Amino acid sequence: MRFVHDTLPQRVVFASGGATEGVATEVGRLAAARVMVIAAPAAAELADRVTRGIPVALRHDEVVMHVPLDVAERAREAAAAHNVDAIVSVGGGSTTGLAKAVALTTGLPVVAVPTTYAGSEATDVWGLTEGATKSTGSDRRVLPHSVVYDAELTLGLPKRMTVASGLNALAHCVDSLWAPKADPINAALATEGARALADGLRRVDADPTDLAGREHTLYGAYLAAVAFASAGSGLHHKICHVLGGRYNLPHAQTHAVVLPYVLALNAPNAPEAEARLARAFGSATALEGLQSLRAALDAPRALRDHGLAEADLPDAVTAVLPVVPPSNPTPATADNLGALLRAAWEGADPS
Amino acid sequence: MRFVHDTLPQRVVFASGGATEGVATEVGRLAAARVMVIAAPAAAELADRVTRGIPVALRHDEVVMHVPLDVAERAREAAAAHNVDAIVSVGGGSTTGLAKAVALTTGLPVVAVPTTYAGSEATDVWGLTEGATKSTGSDRRVLPHSVVYDAELTLGLPKRMTVASGLNALAHCVDSLWAPKADPINAALATEGARALADGLRRVDADPTDLAGREHTLYGAYLAAVAFASAGSGLHHKICHVLGGRYNLPHAQTHAVVLPYVLALNAPNAPEAEARLARAFGSATALEGLQSLRAALDAPRALRDHGLAEADLPDAVTAVLPVVPPSNPTPATADNLGALLRAAWEGADPS
Repeated sequence: MRFVHDTLPQRVVFASGGATEGVATEVGRLAAARVMVIAAPAAAELADRVTRGIPVALRHDEVVMHVPLDVAERAREAAAAHNVDAIVSVGGGSTTGLAKAVALTTGLPVVAVPTTYAGSEATDVWGLTEGATKSTGSDRRVLPHSVVYDAELTLGLPKRMTVASGLNALAHCVDSLWAPKADPINAALATEGARALADGLRRVDADPTDLAGREHTLYGAYLAAVAFASAGSGLHHKICHVLGGRYNLPHAQTHAVVLPYVLALNAPNAPEAEARLARAFGSATALEGLQSLRAALDAPRALRDHGLAEADLPDAVTAVLPVVPPSNPTPATADNLGALLRAAWEGADPS
Repeated sequence: MRFVHDTLPQRVVFASGGATEGVATEVGRLAAARVMVIAAPAAAELADRVTRGIPVALRHDEVVMHVPLDVAERAREAAAAHNVDAIVSVGGGSTTGLAKAVALTTGLPVVAVPTTYAGSEATDVWGLTEGATKSTGSDRRVLPHSVVYDAELTLGLPKRMTVASGLNALAHCVDSLWAPKADPINAALATEGARALADGLRRVDADPTDLAGREHTLYGAYLAAVAFASAGSGLHHKICHVLGGRYNLPHAQTHAVVLPYVLALNAPNAPEAEARLARAFGSATALEGLQSLRAALDAPRALRDHGLAEADLPDAVTAVLPVVPPSNPTPATADNLGALLRAAWEGADPS
């Protein structure tokens, strides 16, 4: 047991139906008088409602996926021009990401109100893209000061997006068990996160308006993000990053497909992770639990259904091999990675 | 699911055999040039070794249980007189407590090196006594900046103190499941803490030099303290506080005796806590798991063996009743509290 763990300071408010009050309290604690509200046009009404109780100096709605640098620059200029003293973001990962991009250069405190299970609000990781190049980094300034989780705001998230976003969160849990900075504290949070996500996603899948199910899923996504931000990217995220970047595969579906294959590769050499996940899923083995959940949710099953060409498989193996974390429990080879990617491409049984 | 959770920032270094290097790194990160080292005379040699790599400006060894105010004042004056810029504490709860008392008024950063399972190093709670009156409070300034956990430093802790200190840590886990600010995050940490403590204490009891067992116990004690500091005192700690304060019962033994009776009272009305603890102990019920652990450790069993007079029982009930937290799962009455205390006094079967 040898590790260094940095716990990041953050205030988390869980209050279904209480977002407006929660945001007012958190902004009040910051003694902010001129707030910049960041929300995409589609979330405009929601943002109106949630920010009713605070002094809004500026509404900013230019939200773009992957936070292009010029979009971030315009938001930073707007913040400076309006002399704002805090930011409230209302939305999914891209919205939170833009708020973090502003915080990165201005140091402005952020109160995040998430509407998906992306988890960005619970990490100190920022991302910016310039042309085709995405840069990421971690900086204490971008960690939102407070997060207000109101599960009612996620009731409208469509079923397919709920499943994709939720399984993406579950991938944070699983991968953080063998990521480069995996440690027992991350593992404890990831295990609880996996338990909450498995339970919550089943309930929400059965009934998208099940508020308790939405709460569990949101809570699980929060823990997943805390664990993942601390543990770093494991093999699963390295593979998905290559697939997304080189072949433009859709983010959440790629994660949903690849996860069981990485678990099948690593579980035999990661008995503690295997036991933790099996406990979390309440199943005999981790893989059995994950597959049973994926089946219940009708999760995406094959990379070929999502735009990966068979001819790209050898290139993908070549691209993944050099970025495999040395911490990975099962040493990666061209052979086992090739088999993994082919199986994921076909949608073959991972076991 | 409705709660507010403040996660406190702290850096935790786990490195058996690596205390000296860990302390040097943490003091270096603080860029401290004049360090005050606080350690009791009994820990002088240990403190020498652990602080070999840092610029020590002052050694302070007046460490007294419960941190009397005049003791704290002398330490504060010494810190000011020597113009120190950081504190390193090496020892148990009283030593850490003195460092926190200095930090409370000076704002000096603390690097804590614990040698017991008290857990004070992981909380923002301070305590000071003036005469017979103990004041406590919580303040962000007293939270140690870093903690260096070196399980080798606990190898010399005698078996009886190991069991008492470890069960005291376990009480932090159990009570935080129904304390006033209990929330799912605290519960996740407490559950992991209980699992680590149960496992570690069994191993250390079988062989006090089992380093992995010491590591698990230390890790569990850390999680227990984080959960407890966030959740606050539940019924168990209220009872023990009254017993300790009014009848001068020994701290750790009192906790070890009382815990199963509080668990037996609350478990029927706290199904989630019950399930969590049963899982952590790997037993059919939480109480069964706790009792099996206590039997294995030959834990203290009756308050009458530790100085409580039978005649004091009615007075104890009267003193506890008004301080029972409203959050307690089973409403406390003079009847059920009386039965609880009598059973704990006799050492009767809690079930």
